[in-house]
Amino acid sequence: MKIGIAQINAIVGDFPGNAKRILAAYRECIEKGAELVVTPEMALVGYPPMDLLFRASFVPKCLQALDYLADEIKDIPLVVGYVDKCPEEAVGKPFRNAAAFLCNGQIKHKTWKTLLPAYDVFDERRYFEPGNSFEPIEWKGVKIGITICEDIWTEDYLHRPLYKDDPALELSKQGIDLMLNLSASPYSMGKPEGRAAMLRKVAQEINAPLVYCNCIGGNDQLIFDGNSAAFDAEGLPLGSLAAFKEECLVINTSLKGDESHKLKPMDSAEECYNALVLGLRDYAQKCGFSKACLGLSGGIDSALTAVIAAEALGAENVHGLTMPSEYSSSGSVDHSIELANKLKMRCDSVPIKDAFRSVKAAMSPVFGDLPEDLTEENMQARIRGLFLMSLSNKTGRLLLTTGNKSELAVGYCTMYGDMCGGLAVISDLPKLQVYALSRWINRNEEIIPWDTIDKPPSAELRHDQKDQDTLPPYEVLDAILELYVEKHLSGAEIIKDHGFDENLVRWIQRRVNLNEWKRFQAAPGLRVSSKAFGMGRRMPLAQRFSD
Amino acid sequence: MKIGIAQINAIVGDFPGNAKRILAAYRECIEKGAELVVTPEMALVGYPPMDLLFRASFVPKCLQALDYLADEIKDIPLVVGYVDKCPEEAVGKPFRNAAAFLCNGQIKHKTWKTLLPAYDVFDERRYFEPGNSFEPIEWKGVKIGITICEDIWTEDYLHRPLYKDDPALELSKQGIDLMLNLSASPYSMGKPEGRAAMLRKVAQEINAPLVYCNCIGGNDQLIFDGNSAAFDAEGLPLGSLAAFKEECLVINTSLKGDESHKLKPMDSAEECYNALVLGLRDYAQKCGFSKACLGLSGGIDSALTAVIAAEALGAENVHGLTMPSEYSSSGSVDHSIELANKLKMRCDSVPIKDAFRSVKAAMSPVFGDLPEDLTEENMQARIRGLFLMSLSNKTGRLLLTTGNKSELAVGYCTMYGDMCGGLAVISDLPKLQVYALSRWINRNEEIIPWDTIDKPPSAELRHDQKDQDTLPPYEVLDAILELYVEKHLSGAEIIKDHGFDENLVRWIQRRVNLNEWKRFQAAPGLRVSSKAFGMGRRMPLAQRFSD
Repeated sequence: MKIGIAQINAIVGDFPGNAKRILAAYRECIEKGAELVVTPEMALVGYPPMDLLFRASFVPKCLQALDYLADEIKDIPLVVGYVDKCPEEAVGKPFRNAAAFLCNGQIKHKTWKTLLPAYDVFDERRYFEPGNSFEPIEWKGVKIGITICEDIWTEDYLHRPLYKDDPALELSKQGIDLMLNLSASPYSMGKPEGRAAMLRKVAQEINAPLVYCNCIGGNDQLIFDGNSAAFDAEGLPLGSLAAFKEECLVINTSLKGDESHKLKPMDSAEECYNALVLGLRDYAQKCGFSKACLGLSGGIDSALTAVIAAEALGAENVHGLTMPSEYSSSGSVDHSIELANKLKMRCDSVPIKDAFRSVKAAMSPVFGDLPEDLTEENMQARIRGLFLMSLSNKTGRLLLTTGNKSELAVGYCTMYGDMCGGLAVISDLPKLQVYALSRWINRNEEIIPWDTIDKPPSAELRHDQKDQDTLPPYEVLDAILELYVEKHLSGAEIIKDHGFDENLVRWIQRRVNLNEWKRFQAAPGLRVSSKAFGMGRRMPLAQRFSD
Repeated sequence: MKIGIAQINAIVGDFPGNAKRILAAYRECIEKGAELVVTPEMALVGYPPMDLLFRASFVPKCLQALDYLADEIKDIPLVVGYVDKCPEEAVGKPFRNAAAFLCNGQIKHKTWKTLLPAYDVFDERRYFEPGNSFEPIEWKGVKIGITICEDIWTEDYLHRPLYKDDPALELSKQGIDLMLNLSASPYSMGKPEGRAAMLRKVAQEINAPLVYCNCIGGNDQLIFDGNSAAFDAEGLPLGSLAAFKEECLVINTSLKGDESHKLKPMDSAEECYNALVLGLRDYAQKCGFSKACLGLSGGIDSALTAVIAAEALGAENVHGLTMPSEYSSSGSVDHSIELANKLKMRCDSVPIKDAFRSVKAAMSPVFGDLPEDLTEENMQARIRGLFLMSLSNKTGRLLLTTGNKSELAVGYCTMYGDMCGGLAVISDLPKLQVYALSRWINRNEEIIPWDTIDKPPSAELRHDQKDQDTLPPYEVLDAILELYVEKHLSGAEIIKDHGFDENLVRWIQRRVNLNEWKRFQAAPGLRVSSKAFGMGRRMPLAQRFSD
């Protein structure tokens, strides 16, 4: 059977727009010869709609849009992801994560998602009642199993066996000729390859061709990478779709697959860069921004963020401010201007000296003879935040924050200072990955000044300050943070099993825990790791656990 | 049987401290004649522990603490709430929300919570596997049913029938003599009375005495009100415990109840005030702050916040700043000083004029001849935020934000300006409730200057500005917001069924939706309504739903 895979970029809650996108892709697939077309999970809704689902008219509007779609579908079926309503009198959650089989102007069949993830960034048990029947549908003599995302994720790829049901197995027992999977599977580094390996294995296990349709696009913190694909009954690839781009592809599941159709793995830096560009572009566009601004410190974090922004929005739409203080090195301005020139983006220099002096003077009657301390460092960062927000307000630009994951972990950043902004572009990249990505950007020519990459990192908030006056070397910091934040190991285990210095580990733990309140108020950050700060990590603030 | 109810205030993750609190309460109950003692849900852990549960050593440390507790318990049993681990090989979530029956140095019995809430502020499906057996335990000839919180919440008190199981019914079918319920039920306005009515009904339905032990204390956004209680088999009250206070009470469940033991309902303003005082005090203490600061604008929001802070922390520990600008009325300083004098708290005046001039001057080469607009209003609010944060930094004080729910809903507040702070004290109070609470505070004497209450509200960010230049009257705004934000009605329904002006409703809807990004970065706010902004309301930012 020739299946059209409609790898589209939906906008959450935009029912008319999403219906249009789906129909356009459906028609493109038909032109390419499709006999059936499949969309991603919740293609009509956008993923994740979160508590919009509870708005009284949200799901009714979704169902109207589904009816509209059904009217447009003739004899070539469309299998589309949407949200359905449970009967009023039913016990349990009010909604279903659903797929509809549309044909000849009708909704011929509905399928419910059975396995509802409730971990990391997923909250599907908050909204949905699980499905519990596993019936293939027959179309032109072909028995088709329809599953939604998690329904085919096997234990090997989850942390532990999470579910009692196995929808893929139940369907395959009934002798299906073809399995469709509608998915909204967010990106993390390395996931495209791991996912492809799993899909291959699923096709082998169910002994039937598998057509997997993932969505693409950035929705707030989540970036969906696409990478839809199809496999024959032996797990050989029948075709792969683009990463980080909309695409429609028709695949004949009656053919035999071969390795030439395999997903082409990207260089990990390239993959991550593409993810961030898409995440930023979509966040801006879907929120209605065409322009952005950011502070350029002359350091590597803001340089990388500027490059990503210029790629995502066009350099002419990105406006940088360099905001030197009395503690700034000459490099901080020079490197910023050099970068801006390379990128052809605007950069203005706005010194903070006078404002800093005014603020200190205003507060001095209150502070009396208390000595200068971290307060004055934070003041400078906050004056910069104030300047940037005023540029954002005055010119309608999205302000980007430029902090990295290592800083955010230990709170080496100023609340309402450098943390100001609507989107944190690289807040899920540990500092070492910031370096790696910056070097990859410079692989052919110098875009980020090499001096920026090579100089010792500094916040430049006091005389001759260096990050490493306060923080351990990033090689050590990032390694400990991975064990503590991503792997959840206790301090005792990190010290004992991994041989890191006790005082250092304890210091990092304390910093991570004490700075939970900063992350609570941080801008949404693009998620590119399997454990980002943000919606997938929910920590109490007032707590006293120590490990 | 004489049951000791240990209504304690646990700190999340503080296993040694919580064990100590539990043992002290246990011993107090024994001294008062208890034959069995019961604690709140997760008393050993603190509720909610959120993703701390995933830290590798968190649940193991909880189980160690449970063993320690068991060792301390002799022949008078303790029924204590904790978190248990599922067997490694078990399918599903790794943990159980559990109660242990401790006696004679042993864990005699374990009960799992069956009904796991996954709505509003609750995420229990993220962590816990539900229980599915309903066995009473027998102690000295008394058949006792043990349930945890949601297990006895009946359909009438939930929005819809959520669960297939009914643990209270299953247990009562087996002829129990007594039902215990360990609870962590957060406060919202009016809930104590509604909850007591439900408990009475449950006792009647199971036809057995019901002993209900709720926790008290503030944990981040949630405030637990206590109000533990017991009822005889006919639903007559056997006793009630304090609201918003730790208490131990022993109740003889063999007696007949009578209405004199009924929960004494508080005046709604008093109830809300007590909740906010507890919420603020606990957030500060549990985070390690003994002192706070805030901006005093001369308006009612900051005045109310100051009163609550002075009550919670002692006036001597609260430091206010009044920060007049060229647009400030004389009242803004005078009323702030008058209030501070009444409360006996420190208040300094720090004019923002010079800093405002410096910031404008610094940005003027970038802005060129663009006219003044909202940017300059925000600048002033941000300079104030900067001053306040510097006071917080310099003196180690928790900065309190003073915005109300109506403002936060429509974004009538400045990000990184008046939104700066570690805790939003009244962010769940609509403006009309701010007035009501302020009048209640002044019921016996003038604490908040009547001029502050009576004058038209103003942000004073431009000449002769009034809230009502931008916003509709608060009577109308609050009514529409309740329908839109709390009841989830669509704009169309609010216009058609409730008769509000179309343009106004559309304007409010737009403002609410456009300002989701501000609420995303807002300080945690104390929850006193059944639908607060914050953890119980999770909205996407980049979305296009319109209703």
